[in-house]
Order: sequence, then structure tokens, then C-alpha cells
Amino acid sequence: MNQNPKIWIINGPNLNLLGEREPGIYGSQTLADIEKSLQDQAQEYPEKPVLSFYQSNSEGRLVDWIQAARHEADFVLLNAGAYTHTSVALRDAIVGSQVQAIELHLSNVHAREDFRKTSYISAVCVGQIAGFGADSYHLALEAAIRLYRKNSNI
Amino acid sequence: MNQNPKIWIINGPNLNLLGEREPGIYGSQTLADIEKSLQDQAQEYPEKPVLSFYQSNSEGRLVDWIQAARHEADFVLLNAGAYTHTSVALRDAIVGSQVQAIELHLSNVHAREDFRKTSYISAVCVGQIAGFGADSYHLALEAAIRLYRKNSNI
Amino acid sequence: MNQNPKIWIINGPNLNLLGEREPGIYGSQTLADIEKSLQDQAQEYPEKPVLSFYQSNSEGRLVDWIQAARHEADFVLLNAGAYTHTSVALRDAIVGSQVQAIELHLSNVHAREDFRKTSYISAVCVGQIAGFGADSYHLALEAAIRLYRKNSNI
Amino acid sequence: MNQNPKIWIINGPNLNLLGEREPGIYGSQTLADIEKSLQDQAQEYPEKPVLSFYQSNSEGRLVDWIQAARHEADFVLLNAGAYTHTSVALRDAIVGSQVQAIELHLSNVHAREDFRKTSYISAVCVGQIAGFGADSYHLALEAAIRLYRKNSNI
Amino acid sequence: MNQNPKIWIINGPNLNLLGEREPGIYGSQTLADIEKSLQDQAQEYPEKPVLSFYQSNSEGRLVDWIQAARHEADFVLLNAGAYTHTSVALRDAIVGSQVQAIELHLSNVHAREDFRKTSYISAVCVGQIAGFGADSYHLALEAAIRLYRKNSNI
Amino acid sequence: MNQNPKIWIINGPNLNLLGEREPGIYGSQTLADIEKSLQDQAQEYPEKPVLSFYQSNSEGRLVDWIQAARHEADFVLLNAGAYTHTSVALRDAIVGSQVQAIELHLSNVHAREDFRKTSYISAVCVGQIAGFGADSYHLALEAAIRLYRKNSNI
Amino acid sequence: MNQNPKIWIINGPNLNLLGEREPGIYGSQTLADIEKSLQDQAQEYPEKPVLSFYQSNSEGRLVDWIQAARHEADFVLLNAGAYTHTSVALRDAIVGSQVQAIELHLSNVHAREDFRKTSYISAVCVGQIAGFGADSYHLALEAAIRLYRKNSNI
Amino acid sequence: MNQNPKIWIINGPNLNLLGEREPGIYGSQTLADIEKSLQDQAQEYPEKPVLSFYQSNSEGRLVDWIQAARHEADFVLLNAGAYTHTSVALRDAIVGSQVQAIELHLSNVHAREDFRKTSYISAVCVGQIAGFGADSYHLALEAAIRLYRKNSNI
Amino acid sequence: MNQNPKIWIINGPNLNLLGEREPGIYGSQTLADIEKSLQDQAQEYPEKPVLSFYQSNSEGRLVDWIQAARHEADFVLLNAGAYTHTSVALRDAIVGSQVQAIELHLSNVHAREDFRKTSYISAVCVGQIAGFGADSYHLALEAAIRLYRKNSNI
Amino acid sequence: MNQNPKIWIINGPNLNLLGEREPGIYGSQTLADIEKSLQDQAQEYPEKPVLSFYQSNSEGRLVDWIQAARHEADFVLLNAGAYTHTSVALRDAIVGSQVQAIELHLSNVHAREDFRKTSYISAVCVGQIAGFGADSYHLALEAAIRLYRKNSNI
Amino acid sequence: MNQNPKIWIINGPNLNLLGEREPGIYGSQTLADIEKSLQDQAQEYPEKPVLSFYQSNSEGRLVDWIQAARHEADFVLLNAGAYTHTSVALRDAIVGSQVQAIELHLSNVHAREDFRKTSYISAVCVGQIAGFGADSYHLALEAAIRLYRKNSNI
Amino acid sequence: MNQNPKIWIINGPNLNLLGEREPGIYGSQTLADIEKSLQDQAQEYPEKPVLSFYQSNSEGRLVDWIQAARHEADFVLLNAGAYTHTSVALRDAIVGSQVQAIELHLSNVHAREDFRKTSYISAVCVGQIAGFGADSYHLALEAAIRLYRKNSNI
Repeated sequence: MNQNPKIWIINGPNLNLLGEREPGIYGSQTLADIEKSLQDQAQEYPEKPVLSFYQSNSEGRLVDWIQAARHEADFVLLNAGAYTHTSVALRDAIVGSQVQAIELHLSNVHAREDFRKTSYISAVCVGQIAGFGADSYHLALEAAIRLYRKNSNI
Repeated sequence: MNQNPKIWIINGPNLNLLGEREPGIYGSQTLADIEKSLQDQAQEYPEKPVLSFYQSNSEGRLVDWIQAARHEADFVLLNAGAYTHTSVALRDAIVGSQVQAIELHLSNVHAREDFRKTSYISAVCVGQIAGFGADSYHLALEAAIRLYRKNSNI
Repeated sequence: MNQNPKIWIINGPNLNLLGEREPGIYGSQTLADIEKSLQDQAQEYPEKPVLSFYQSNSEGRLVDWIQAARHEADFVLLNAGAYTHTSVALRDAIVGSQVQAIELHLSNVHAREDFRKTSYISAVCVGQIAGFGADSYHLALEAAIRLYRKNSNI
Repeated sequence: MNQNPKIWIINGPNLNLLGEREPGIYGSQTLADIEKSLQDQAQEYPEKPVLSFYQSNSEGRLVDWIQAARHEADFVLLNAGAYTHTSVALRDAIVGSQVQAIELHLSNVHAREDFRKTSYISAVCVGQIAGFGADSYHLALEAAIRLYRKNSNI
Repeated sequence: MNQNPKIWIINGPNLNLLGEREPGIYGSQTLADIEKSLQDQAQEYPEKPVLSFYQSNSEGRLVDWIQAARHEADFVLLNAGAYTHTSVALRDAIVGSQVQAIELHLSNVHAREDFRKTSYISAVCVGQIAGFGADSYHLALEAAIRLYRKNSNI
Repeated sequence: MNQNPKIWIINGPNLNLLGEREPGIYGSQTLADIEKSLQDQAQEYPEKPVLSFYQSNSEGRLVDWIQAARHEADFVLLNAGAYTHTSVALRDAIVGSQVQAIELHLSNVHAREDFRKTSYISAVCVGQIAGFGADSYHLALEAAIRLYRKNSNI
Repeated sequence: MNQNPKIWIINGPNLNLLGEREPGIYGSQTLADIEKSLQDQAQEYPEKPVLSFYQSNSEGRLVDWIQAARHEADFVLLNAGAYTHTSVALRDAIVGSQVQAIELHLSNVHAREDFRKTSYISAVCVGQIAGFGADSYHLALEAAIRLYRKNSNI
Repeated sequence: MNQNPKIWIINGPNLNLLGEREPGIYGSQTLADIEKSLQDQAQEYPEKPVLSFYQSNSEGRLVDWIQAARHEADFVLLNAGAYTHTSVALRDAIVGSQVQAIELHLSNVHAREDFRKTSYISAVCVGQIAGFGADSYHLALEAAIRLYRKNSNI
Repeated sequence: MNQNPKIWIINGPNLNLLGEREPGIYGSQTLADIEKSLQDQAQEYPEKPVLSFYQSNSEGRLVDWIQAARHEADFVLLNAGAYTHTSVALRDAIVGSQVQAIELHLSNVHAREDFRKTSYISAVCVGQIAGFGADSYHLALEAAIRLYRKNSNI
Repeated sequence: MNQNPKIWIINGPNLNLLGEREPGIYGSQTLADIEKSLQDQAQEYPEKPVLSFYQSNSEGRLVDWIQAARHEADFVLLNAGAYTHTSVALRDAIVGSQVQAIELHLSNVHAREDFRKTSYISAVCVGQIAGFGADSYHLALEAAIRLYRKNSNI
Repeated sequence: MNQNPKIWIINGPNLNLLGEREPGIYGSQTLADIEKSLQDQAQEYPEKPVLSFYQSNSEGRLVDWIQAARHEADFVLLNAGAYTHTSVALRDAIVGSQVQAIELHLSNVHAREDFRKTSYISAVCVGQIAGFGADSYHLALEAAIRLYRKNSNI
Repeated sequence: MNQNPKIWIINGPNLNLLGEREPGIYGSQTLADIEKSLQDQAQEYPEKPVLSFYQSNSEGRLVDWIQAARHEADFVLLNAGAYTHTSVALRDAIVGSQVQAIELHLSNVHAREDFRKTSYISAVCVGQIAGFGADSYHLALEAAIRLYRKNSNI
């Protein structure tokens, strides 16, 4: 494991609207802003993780990417958006691909509508980070690096 | 707002089967018949609304179109079909795009299976029209024009 | 069916407060304003429908009228207000009277309290129109005329 | 019905991972292995059924295929995977296309998570076969041939 | 108790439509037919019970009558119709008036919609008779006479 | 149908304890007392119905008898006792045997524990009579005779 | 606000039976006794509130009065009785009339049947007082006066 | 009972924050203000009740006090705060101590989150008073005095 | 395992009525017809499986047979009929006996009443086959032979 | 009560498999081993209780025995096995027979499947003992003797 | 394990009221009486177990003791009282401390309010004993000794 | 805000067992280890945050500390342990104290028992971090610093 860790950041439906969509809830940064900022963060780690970014409104496309990640990525940072609450297919993809996935959300999903309290994917991810706006991405990257170090020590 | 109002009619899964699928429930008109008939109706309004028609079986594609509508359309007439009952992503797309959407159904969804009584999108649409067969589209267009006039008067 | 269609507009509890009650939700038109406006709309149809208006806060009175409608009216436009959510008696009256009823609501009932999502009458009406303010009445009248024409063609 | 019966085998999300994904639950055969083995089985029937194979992670694509099947196939053997539990659109496609569909699952879905006990498609399929690993496909093909013979005798 | 027993037959909403309303479910006899037939039955008992008949679509009126019955009647035969399923006020009236009430239904309410399985009044009536059409009234009268004899023997 | 009607009275678990078990709820008559009293009642009808009596604590035995009744009896008066609330097998036996069954209970089951409000058999019986003690049997016999006469008149 | 405060005491179904109905639960005072006693209490306040009393078994009548109260009364003391648990119309009337209503009950509704724990009106009243018998009225009057003073001080 | 009545006012978690915490919901008076104001009110009663005040954030401490009250107090005015909704131990303490407890809340708990509608203690208190801000305490004291007088008259 | 596989076909309540009972749902073959047809099928396998047939309406008897099967049979084909939905005892018998059981149903239980969607035995059987009429038995036998071969290869 | 106490030990379905069935859950002792060991324990009590043992897989048979026990036994130690969770008939038998029954289970039913948390019989037994393997029988016998002594002292 | 077994008896809220609190449910012995009686019982075992007694109304204190028990006690006899039904913290303490705990209750919790049927601790205790009054403690001690002997034999 | 940010780390029940309790779930670090490691992390931030550590098994104590934090701390990192799922009092303390709280958990609570999916505090915290073992603390500290910087920039 002395290569650079490969980390895929996969974003689900409507996250392409970030910065424009309900800024009161989701903040004013665009997804491109966040990606740039994550690249900056990545450069600060001695492991120099390699980041790849994906976004789609299609559940099937997200499943494709998670499957692809099993050979290509060490970690998936997954903001599944609305599919968090309705997709068993994403859950099966995570389990079937045996990727280490970290679930993240911009908003505090627990303080919103009841149907956002159901998550099909939480139980098959390593952990969850939610409610910190764009910082949820930064914390998830930090979490991935920490996991990577722990795994490397074993 | 002295331009022609732009109205997108977005149809969800299986509506391409209209006229052929369960005519007892959905009527014998095809989607093309309805589109033609809506164009005729549009010509009768002094506002001469411009109609655009979309249909897909893919949830992600529908999300794409609703996002696109936010810059291109004044109103969306949305027959989300089966995704009405299962898609949080469509709901988020409507809210995120800040389009004025009118939910419509050919059949009286309240007189069918229980799972058709759940709707993720009703609460974020302006209103609902259901149960009048192909006339549900005509009433929805009428509703959009009435909304347009009200907005113009403000 | 070459007579003028007879259409009864039956309003349930608290609709006599229209224009005064929670204008943010229900609009500023009174029931009398709406009735006048519906009469204007009626005059524009070649069928010259004959409209009759009823309002009561009493569930039993509404049942009486729906029963009476079965010999006197071709269509009932029914805004059952709060009884929508609690009255099995209204449902039985509609079924027992075999009237063609169109359910309507001023507000988008699906975007309000949970108990407003239960409707005992939706399943026995032809269809529903909700969320367009006073225009819900106009759309319901339009719907009735369209149904009348369809029936006449058979 | 003296032609060769045409049978489409449609597979849903994550079934492309077969053989690799959780072999303890799903077995070690790949989807290609199963397809080959089904072709062998088909050759043993005097009716010489013609098999076609489909797989997608996209719900919309599966709906497209089921719609297409209504003109092209006598039977659909449907392993809808995770969409079994969440897709009303697939259900509507089966009903709307009037195909004879046989639901199948590799694993015993009733012995797994609670959410796998909900099926939107069971009620609109002819029958279900679940729990026999790759043999679920073979039994479903056998079931289709038996149905074909029964239909031919009528 | 050597007077003639006084028995009130109280009918709830829509029962005035009997004979006309859904004869497949409720039979072709009108309420007047049933009343006449009950009077004939009453004459056959040595106790010569005195019958009084009431019907209203108004929940409040039914409550009034049940209250009045407490001083005037020995038994109430109550077909509360749709209010069976929604009225706590009728329940309280029965308990508050301490009348001996027998619940009756023309149809087998247990074989109809789920909401007809809830009854607020069953638990405070002596017993229930349901599903025998107009004979439900005759059996309820028979039941009242049998109760009357039992009470007289104590 | 000019023979004497044959009526089977089938009693479920614990009804052999009648007269001894919880007399406050079930009365002090034994099952033998009730049988004798029913025979007396039978003699008063001009149709001279022939009664047969059965009791078992075994669900399977009750199913056997209901099956046997389909060739031997015109009506079954069924006090299924506790199996009312738990037995789908009895329900299937009634439907499968196409017997006309009348459900009866000594006590007012609706005023007791919640689990006694579930009945698997109500929906497949002609009607229900409950809460009149031993008189529930007499009313059920009366109901059967009335049904017999109605059927004979057709 | 230097006039005498006008307070309407509105009583729902079966409260006319007070003193007679289930005295173990509701006490032995009649509604007239309570009214007289409230008048005495009113005379002790320097504000000399003017009390008006209403009672009906009809939900519609209660709605009428609450609507009327909006122009005539400063406070409504509302014992809605059984309609507390079933009436959305009363709730809408309170909200629509913008009256300050205080919910009161003679008995401790929380210690009775489960269906009495549902209240449609609690959330739209200022507060609740329950369980103190006739004193619930006195406490509600005291509460109204205290509210009146608070409002006057603003 | 010719002694001064002893009344304990027991306050649960977070009530020490009163005046500071969410004044929009709970008012601007501190608990000390309320205690002083209650002492003033106490002096106006001829019975001269003796008040004692307690507050703790600990469920166990509240149980201790309620137990202690059984020998020391005639009434407990209990604002159990959040423990209202989660504590069976408090309920058992009230029942076990056989104290007469009056439940009170500053806010209208029925107009807040759903979990505040569950109360473990309502059913074992004499009555409830909620929604009147600090006046809820004054009304509860008034209620206690009225109960005291009633008990003394027996 | 080079002996002939021994397979017990155990049938639950009301299956003795097959051919007579609701042929629209269950087909017109009797249980004897099916048994004969299964014997024919058995002769076509090189393994020459030995079949034994059982049917009872008694839950206890079915438990006895499943227990007996643990020493006598390689597979149980179990059509538990109505006990599928209510019997924990059958479930425990399967687990306790460690037999390999295949659950089968003639009808598509998922397209019928809600209570037929609960199965206590599905989770402890190898797999399920439902909806193919008498062919469900043939498919289950085929499934057993395939399992037998797989086990023999290990 | 100076006779030897008579104690019946009644065992439900699948308990005849003890020692053989899932020893990880139920232990390795057979039912005969346990009976012998209970006889040894009985001899140690000065009361010299007389034990009788019963086991059946049939619900009806268990009901028969519990009924018989009412004249023959002072206590019933009841391990109803799976019928614990599904049998209202056993519950009614216990209540109807007025036997003092002690419910026992080998395993900790609360740590297993959810459906084992429902018990129809717990509420009508004196008490429960569960989770101690074969010692559950010994503790139940001890409990019966202690109850016997307490009853004798009264 | 040839030392004397150390057994902690930990009692939850309100158990200090024993003998005084609701004697109809909980008996007339005080906790001190029971402790003395348990000491007597302990002396009769050859293992001479050492007993320690604890009681608190505070959930946190009980958690402290259970944690302390992990180094000090072989068994915990836990009567958690009301916290049985609400405390996840106690559950976690038992699991985290890896103590062998036996759950006990004086009353038959299954025959009381519904909320007493939920237990957070049953699933993590060895077993339960409930309903035998003070004898529940004696049986629990007996159970602990039997477990101790079994463990010693391994 | 140019002072050092003050951050309180508050730990709930059983977290004092860390390192010893179920290391497979919670890791092998003790709470002291984590505290030391957090101090190291704190020193790396230019803001030099001041950390304070608290742990208690008592819900009331935790409430006390959260209240105290409102004047003393800029952020609370809250691992409420089991009280997460049962404590409304903690929720009210957070809201009432207006502290910025970050909810954290060592384990992935969503992958454990169902009752751990309920959280009373999530909705009133800024965000959640769960599932990363001791790293959950480090990520929460990082999150607090990021929030602090964001707040300082406003």
C-alpha cells in the first residue's frame, strides 16, 4: 500500500445544481468549487491521494461507477443525495463491490423531512458525515486518509 | 413577461405506451394524439404558449429535464407516472430548480393500489389534477395559463 | 342530453369564511366572488350550464344535498373542506347517489398537515383538482364540461 | 403457436457482478456461465426456445426492455434484483406490456433484510422462483416451457 | 316491566336511500318496506312491542335521539351507517344515555373496505348483527325481545 | 329445495367448557343445554330443519367438518372461538367448501382484547351475530331459516 | 380593550347530559349548575367578563358558533367533547376565525380509551385544561382572564 | 384537614434555564420569578398553602422527591419537562407514592414535535394544564386549592 | 449418496379439496392427479427418486411428519397452505428437523390478500416456488433433484 | 390442601425433539432426561408433589389437557413452544380452566426473532421463567411449590 | 471458581417503596425483608454465596453499579423496575461489562400496560423471571446458583 | 472571536469503559488515550483550541454540563452514547443552551439494532459523524475548527 491512495468522490442527483439550488440549505459553493478545494486539501497530505470526481442524476450510472470503483479506488466518498433514501441498488452495489464507502451529506438530513431519515446505504458504509455543508466533503476526505493510514499499519 | 409563456410537458415511465396500455384505465389516445390536441388548445389562448414535449422511462433523464427547465420554461406539466410514488430525486429536482410544476395523472390514483397514494412530489408542486384521462393534460395547460396571467398581473 | 347541463357546486365547512380566513392559504376572494366568476365562465360555454351553489358547515346537510343532486344535477363540484378527511357518510352519499362528483380544493392539501392526506372521498369521485386557489373551481367547471361532452358523444 | 417460443431473460442491477459479488450468497457462476448453461438447457426442449439476454443497472433501461418484449417475446424471465423492492415503474411496465413474466431470485430473499420482503412486481408476474442459486434460472426456463405448452393446448 | 317494550329503530346517513342505493349490496327494499315488515313481526310477539322509527343524515340529530331514548325506549336498534366508523359522539351518547343498543348492518361490513372494520360503537352496544340484508333488522328485533324476556325474568 | 334444511352447528375450542368457564362472560348454560334449546326452536319452524352438533378443540378437525359440510349441510352456524382470530385454514375451508356459514359469538368480541378484533373468517361468512350469549345461537338459527326461505323463493 | 371581555363557553355533544351521564366520570353537576357557578366567578373579577353559553350535539352548529365568535367574543372556552377526537372542521373553524380558544375537558382524557388521545384541536388552541371535573371550566375562565390582562398590558 | 395544605412544586430538566431559554416558547420569567409570584398568590387563599420548590435535571432525583412527597405534601404540581415523554420511573413514583399530582407545562406541548404528544405521566395525574406560560403554574395552584376544598368537604 | 433420493411431498389444510375448490385459483387437477403426474416425472430422472405423499388439515400432524422426515427423507416439498401464514410450529419443526424443505404454492400468494404475504416458513426453507398451479409441484421436484445432484458433487 | 400437590408439565410442539434439535439453543438433554431430573427434584420437597408429563405437537391436544387439568392438577408448568406466539385457544383454555399456569421457555425468547416477542399466554399465567435451558423446568417446579406453600398459608 | 460466588442484587427506581407501594401488585414485604430472606436462602447453599444489595432511583447510578460489578460479581440479579422499558444505557452497561445478569420482576409485566412489554434489557440477560412477587428474587438466586454450578462443571 | 476557541468534549454512559468494552465494536483505545490524542491534534491548529473533557453515566449530569457549556464553550462535541436514543432532556438542553453541538459516535449506529436508529438529538445538532472509531472524535474536532473559522469570517 505504498502507492498514492485513489479516492473517488461520487455525487448523486441534483448535486450538479450546488451553489444555485436552495443556498440556504446547501451553501453557495458549486460542485466545481468543492472539487478544487478538495484537490488543495489532497495536496497537503503526504500520501498525495489521487481524487476522481463523478456526478450523475441517474441511479444506474451511480451503480456503474461504484462497481467500477472496486478495481480502481481505495475509497469512495459517496453523496448519494436523494437516492440515499430510495435505492437498494446502490446498497447492493456497495456490498457487491466491497469498496470502502463513506456516506456524506451537505445538510443535516436528520433535521429535515421524515423520509430523509431512512437510508438504505448507511448500514453498508464505513461511517457517515452530515450537516457541515461543503466541509462534509473535507471531513470525509480526512476520514478516508485516516482509514488509509490505519489499514497501512496493519 | 410579455413573451409567450414556455411550457414543458414532461412524461415519465410507461407513458410512451399510452393508447396501447390498459385502455380501460388510461384511455385510447396515444401520447402523440394528446400532444397534437394540446397544440390545438395552445393556439386558442391569446398568450400563444410554446409547448415542448418530453418522455423518458429513466428517472435520471427526468431529473435532467426538470433541471434544464429552470432556465427554459415558465411551467412544467409533470406526469411523473410511477416515479411519483418512489422518487425523492424528482422532488429535489423540482425544489432545486424552482420551476412551477403542475402534477397530473390520467387515472384517479386515489382509487387504485395503496402504494399509489404516496407521492413525493405533490407537496412541492403548485397543484394536482388527476382522474380525467387525457383531459388531465388539457386542464393542466389551462391551469398553467391561469397561473401565468395571475403572475403577470402582480 | 341536449338540455343544459346542471352543475351543483357544493361547499363544506368554513368555506363561508373565504376571503377572510387565512388569506395566505386560501386567497382573498369570497365565496360570492367565486360564484359570480363561475357564472361568467359558464356563459362562455355553448352548453350554457346551469349552476347552483350550496354551502354548509353541517356534514348531514351536505349528505342531504348530494342525495338530492342525484335527480337534479349532472355533476357535483365538491369542495368538502375538512369533511374530506373524516367523512365516510359523504363517501357513501356519493356512491349511493351515483352522481358524477369532482373533488376540488383551494390549497395544495398534500403540502399541509398529515391528516389532510387522508381522503375518504377521492376514490369515489371522478377526479381531483387541488392547489390552484379560486382557479380550482374554474378548472373543475371546465372538467365537468369536458366530461359532459364526452358523455354526449357516446 | 407452432413457432419457437421466444424467451427474454432480463437481469437488473448488480447482476453483472455475479460470480464475483458475495459468492456466499449468490454463487460462483458468472452471468455468462448461466447464459451458456441456459442455452444448453434450451436445446433439450423439443420446442427449441430462442433465448435473449439483457442486463442493466438502470431502471429506465429495464422498463424499455420490458416494453420492447411485448412485441418480441412470449415470456420474460425477470431477475429485477434490487429494483424488485423499489420500482413501481417496472410493475407498470409489466402490466402495460402484458408480457407473461416470471420473477426469479438467486437467493432466498425472504431470509434476508426486511426491505427485501417488499416486492412491487410479484403481484403482476405469473409466479416466483427464489432461493436456488443459478438453478433459479433453470427452473424459471422450465416453468416458461410448461406455461407455453399449457397455452398451446388451449 | 309488564308494559309493552318500547323499541326505537334509529337509522343513520344514507339509509333513506335504501332500495335505490347500490341494490347489489343493500337489497331492493326501501326503509318504509322494512318498517312495515318490522311492524308485522312486532305483532306476532305476545309482548306487543311498540316500535318508533328515526332516520337522519346528521350525526348531531342521531345523538339527540339516542339521548331522548334514555327516558323513552327500552331498546335501540341502531344502524349508524357510515357514522359507525367515525363517530365518538354516538359512542358517548350510548354510554351516557345508558340505553341498551343493538348494532346492526345490512351488509357484511367485514368484507368491505378496511375503514369499515373500525367501529366506535361496537364496544358499547350489547351485540352486533351484520350481513343479512333487511333480515338484520328482523334479527335485531328478535334479539331485543329475547333480551327483554331475560331482563324480565331477573 | 323441498327437503328439510340441514344445518350444522360447529363449535371451536373451549366451547365444551360452556356453563363452567367464566360464566360472567359466557353465561351459565352448557353446550348441551344450548343444543337442546336449539332443537326445541327447530321444531317450531314449518321447515323442520335438521340440526347436527360438533365441537372440537382442534383446528384441523374443524377444517375437516367444514369440508364435510359442503355435501351434507345447507348452512353452517360457526362459533369458531379463539380460532376466529388466528386461523386462515378455517377461512380457506369455508371458501373452498362453498358452504353458507354464519359466524356467531356468545360475547361481544368487540368489547374485549384487541386481538379479538381481528377475524379471518368474517369476510367469508354470510354475516355475524355476536354478544347475545346463548341467544346468539338462536338468532343464528333464525337467520339461517330466513336465508333458506329467501333462497327457496328465487 | 377597556370594555368587558366577552367570553363564549361552547360545549359539544352529550354535555347536555351532564349530571346525569356517568357521574363517576363527569361529576354530578348539570351544565346549568356549572353555568351559574361560572357567572358567580365572573362577578368576582374587576373586568366583569360577559359570559355566553352554547351547547349542541351537532358538529356543524359548533362550527357556526366558533365562526360567529370571531366578531363577538374575545375568548372561547371550548369543551368539544367527542368531536375533539374526530373533527378537522372544528380545527379549521378555530384557525379560520382567529379566536383565542382554550380547550377544556371534565375528565382526564389521557387516562381513558386510546382514541381519546388524538386531538385535532389541541394544536390550534392556546392551551388545555383537563381532568378537574367542573373546575376545569373555572380554571379555563381564570386562564382567559389572565390572558386578557396580559394582552391588555401589551 | 384543618392544617395549611402543603404543596410541592417539582420542576424537571432544563427548567432552571427559564427566562433565558427560548423565550419565544417559554416566556421571559425565571423560575425564581415564578416562585415569588406563586408565593404571592398563595397568600391570597384563606387556606394559606405552604409551598416548597424543587428543580433537578436528574430523573432519579425527581423520583426521590415524589417519593418524599407522599408523607410531606398534599399535592404535587409537576412540570416534568422532557421526562414527561420518556420516564416510566416518574409514573411509577406517582402511583407508588399515591400523591395527588397535577401535570403542567409552560408551552402547548400538543402544538410541538410529535414525540411531545406521548406522556407517561398524564394518565396517573389528576389533570393537566398546558400552554399558558408561567400562568400554567398559577392555574395549577388554583386547581390544587380547589381540589383541597373538595376533599375537605367530603 | 448413491441411493435413490427420498422425497416427501407434504400438503397442508384444504389441499385435499384440490380440483373441487375454487378451480379458477387452484386448477382442476385433484391431489391424486398431481401425485400420479409427479410419479411419472420421477421415473424420468436417472436417480429414480422415491416419492411419498402426505396431506392433513391438522397443524400438529404436519409437524409430526416434518419431524419424521428428518430420518427418512432427503427433501421435503412443502405446500403448507394456510399454515404458511400462521404457524411458527411448522417453522420450528423444519429448523429442528434440519430437513431440506422447498416451499411451494399453487397460486401466486403475492397477488392475493395481505395476510398471505406473511410467511413464517419461507426464511427456513431452501427456496420458494409459487404461482404455477400444479406445475409448482413439478418445478419443486426438479429443484430437489438439482439440489441432490449439487450435494452429491461436493 | 394437605394432599400432595399435583403438578402437570405440559410441553408443546417440537419439544419431543429436545436434545437432538439445535442443541446450541436448546441444550443436549432430552425431554425424558428432564422428566427424570424433575422427579428427583420433586422427591426433595416435603410436600412430595406428584408430577405428570405431557407433550404434543397438536394445539387442540394441548387445549384438551389444559381443560383436563382444571379438575386434576394444582399447577400447570407450560412450555407451549411455538404456540406461545400464535395460540389464542391456549390462552382461552388457561382462563377458562382457571388453572394456575407457569409459563416457561428453555431459550431466552426475547433475544430471538421478533415474532417470538408476542405471547398470547403470558398475561394469563402467574409468571414466566425463560432462558435457563433445562433449569427453566426446575425453577418452574420450585416456583410452583412456593406458590403452593403461600396458598396453603392463607 | 472454588471461591464463594459473589452475587449482586441491583434494584431500580421505586423499589425502595416495596411493601408500601401498591401492595396488591407488589406484595407487602419491604426490600429489607426480601434481603434478609435472601440471606437465609443463601446460607442453605453449600457454595455459600456472598450477596450485596443496591437500590437507586437514578439510571446513571445503576449503570455505575453494573459497570462495577464486572470486576466484583459473578452474577447480577437485576430488577431494573421502570428503567427496564426505557433504558438503552443499562443494556449497554450489561453488554459492556460482560456480567451475567438475570432479569427479574415482582409482577407479571406482561399482564400490565403495553409499554411494559418493551424491554431493552431482556435480550442481553441470561434469562427472565417475572410474576412471582418476592419469590422472583428467590428463584433468581436459585437460577444463579444453578448457572454457577454449570459453569464450574465445564 | 480572536480568543482560543473553547471546546467541550462530553461523553455519555458507558464510554468510561472504552478500550475494555466490546473492542470489536468500539476499538481498543481508552477514553484517556483519545483525550491525549485530541490534545495533540489541538496543538496543531493555529487557533490553539482549549479542550475540556467530561464523562458521566447520568443523564441529569450531562444536561447540567450542556447547560453550563452555554456560557463557557464555543462548541460541544457530544457522544451521548445510549442517551442519544432515549433522551428528550438532552435535546432540550442543547436547544435551550444554544450551544453549537456536534453529534459523534464511535460505531456506525445505522448498522446496529433498530432502536439505535432513533436519535432525539440529531435534529438539534449542527451535524453528525459516526462510524470511524476513535477517529470520530478527531473528525469532530476538525469540524468544530472549520465551523469556528467560518463563523469568524462572517
